[in-house]
Amino acid sequence: MMSIMTTTHDTIRAVLWQDDRLQLLDQRILPQQHAFLAYDDPVAVAQAIRDMVVRGAPAIGVAAAYGVVLAGRQRYRSAGAAWRTAIKEDIARLAASRPTAVNLFWALERMERRIAGLGEGDPEAALLAEARAIHAEDIAANHRMGELGAALIEGNGVGVLTHCNAGALATGGYGTALGVIRSAYAAGRIGHVYADETRPWLQGARLTAWEMVQERIPVTLLSDGASAHLMKQGKVAWVIVGSDRIAANGDVANKIGTYAAAISARYHGVKFMVVAPTSTVDMSLANGSLIPIENRSPDEVLALGGQRVAAEGAAGWNPAFDVTPAELVDAIVTERGVVLNPTTEKMAAMMKNG
Amino acid sequence: MMSIMTTTHDTIRAVLWQDDRLQLLDQRILPQQHAFLAYDDPVAVAQAIRDMVVRGAPAIGVAAAYGVVLAGRQRYRSAGAAWRTAIKEDIARLAASRPTAVNLFWALERMERRIAGLGEGDPEAALLAEARAIHAEDIAANHRMGELGAALIEGNGVGVLTHCNAGALATGGYGTALGVIRSAYAAGRIGHVYADETRPWLQGARLTAWEMVQERIPVTLLSDGASAHLMKQGKVAWVIVGSDRIAANGDVANKIGTYAAAISARYHGVKFMVVAPTSTVDMSLANGSLIPIENRSPDEVLALGGQRVAAEGAAGWNPAFDVTPAELVDAIVTERGVVLNPTTEKMAAMMKNG
Repeated sequence: MMSIMTTTHDTIRAVLWQDDRLQLLDQRILPQQHAFLAYDDPVAVAQAIRDMVVRGAPAIGVAAAYGVVLAGRQRYRSAGAAWRTAIKEDIARLAASRPTAVNLFWALERMERRIAGLGEGDPEAALLAEARAIHAEDIAANHRMGELGAALIEGNGVGVLTHCNAGALATGGYGTALGVIRSAYAAGRIGHVYADETRPWLQGARLTAWEMVQERIPVTLLSDGASAHLMKQGKVAWVIVGSDRIAANGDVANKIGTYAAAISARYHGVKFMVVAPTSTVDMSLANGSLIPIENRSPDEVLALGGQRVAAEGAAGWNPAFDVTPAELVDAIVTERGVVLNPTTEKMAAMMKNG
Repeated sequence: MMSIMTTTHDTIRAVLWQDDRLQLLDQRILPQQHAFLAYDDPVAVAQAIRDMVVRGAPAIGVAAAYGVVLAGRQRYRSAGAAWRTAIKEDIARLAASRPTAVNLFWALERMERRIAGLGEGDPEAALLAEARAIHAEDIAANHRMGELGAALIEGNGVGVLTHCNAGALATGGYGTALGVIRSAYAAGRIGHVYADETRPWLQGARLTAWEMVQERIPVTLLSDGASAHLMKQGKVAWVIVGSDRIAANGDVANKIGTYAAAISARYHGVKFMVVAPTSTVDMSLANGSLIPIENRSPDEVLALGGQRVAAEGAAGWNPAFDVTPAELVDAIVTERGVVLNPTTEKMAAMMKNG
């Protein structure tokens, strides 16, 4: 089995299986507090995903896989041999927690395939082994993508911009976009990271800045609207982001604001890289217009820190994701290889690798 | 003298001369509290501009003009006939309060010209008349720009996007961008206003949403990064913004994030309108690269509502403005006329009007 342990430049884990249960780093209170919440109950895991205790497409998938382990244990204890039927309710609930990140459905389907191969005895050990494999493979994929993505970056000590948090916190560990940044920083290719604060949830300000400080990688925070002005100054060679779902043609769903950054990057001749494992690729959707976009509560825009900011009577619009068309993407980096200027044909060829 | 009174669709004043002194609506605490602060002292007025009690290029100019009235009163009382020499220190202090909005320097120069024409007697009445004229002319210019800008908008009930607050609160009254929106809404041409929240200072969330609610114009707030996604949905026909300084070639300095919105607008075929009185036009600067851009404290990005959000060790970058190149601007609307696809020649011709 591959390792879930941390190493140099890879010191952060947000999802753990420890003391026979799932432990999630509560990302709602970072960086002020660094506290894990423990889960024995798959219902609570689904709620934790919905409430964004854990967030980031790959991390959601890993957490959901461990949620299935907890469900298997509970259902076997309460229903005995009927656990295989009873667990379907838990899997459906986990699947309903958030709509956009396809890694969630990918991980649940993989756990279901494992379940299909099991008998009626206690499933916990087998389910745990599968969830641990999903977790370890995600970390390994991130390290591989780190190498592949870093190799695309020419020059020494260049500046890069990232949006949201596609880091260790958003994955099994090491990160997708921040995995490339970790690898490229270690190799001297990246010298400075600029992080969009990423309203409304401030993943950049709260999570990415914290991750970079932990890894001693120089990071400067800016408001999302300032990134075009930053590119104009020539301070950024690449925009590097993660993804929540990539369609068959290379259209990329990611945190709201990514699309705006991609448009600005193209306008300034800055390159745009998307880093995501193949578990993020949804070959069943021909293009990005078919990706379901989660609309979250307008309160996340109308209020700040729990206090209403906007006048009563104002409405709010709060899509959590947007879609960047493949035409604005210079490179999609997966653990199976790099797709430059993605098209449906190139994406299909990459998916057939490894 | 033109009127400073409010009328239909024009109910908000943030700068008042009342009870023989300057009154400023404290925009730092809107919309939770609606409170005026009173000023007798030009030193305090300069501090109020620096602290953004009053903000918005034309409003800063009007407030500074009234600050010169207060300075004239103080200096005449303390220095008698020497007031004309003594007041220079007050004017220099007002000029040093903020660097980007050229209306500030324009208003102070106009007050200085008035001073140059005065004798050594009590200047207060003459200075107050001049400040009142600056104020009334600004409102009149906004109403005129409202008509000119509204005439550019084709169709009925279209959606528009605005960034920051270029409203009654940012001007002597009625507003520049929001003046056009008021006029076009009254004429049925605009049906819905989308407002970027405008990080880090949240002028959109706190001020523009409030202004629109006051005027019963439907408004929906969104995070700055969501505006490209909004344009993709086809919900916006125009982006309409104000300006803090326009260079001779039509390059436009405005609130940070404006440039990103302009790039997205062009990418989507959405039109981009800048609304500003000629007091915002600085024909002494050949292009926007020469406009001084204020860098404010990184704390405005690193903290939220006074509480540190980003990890200790992260840096912040907080330019208050950016420059949108003339090539991305479809129309500059001033009280002297409209300049389509601005160039140095067209701007110069417009400035010679009226």
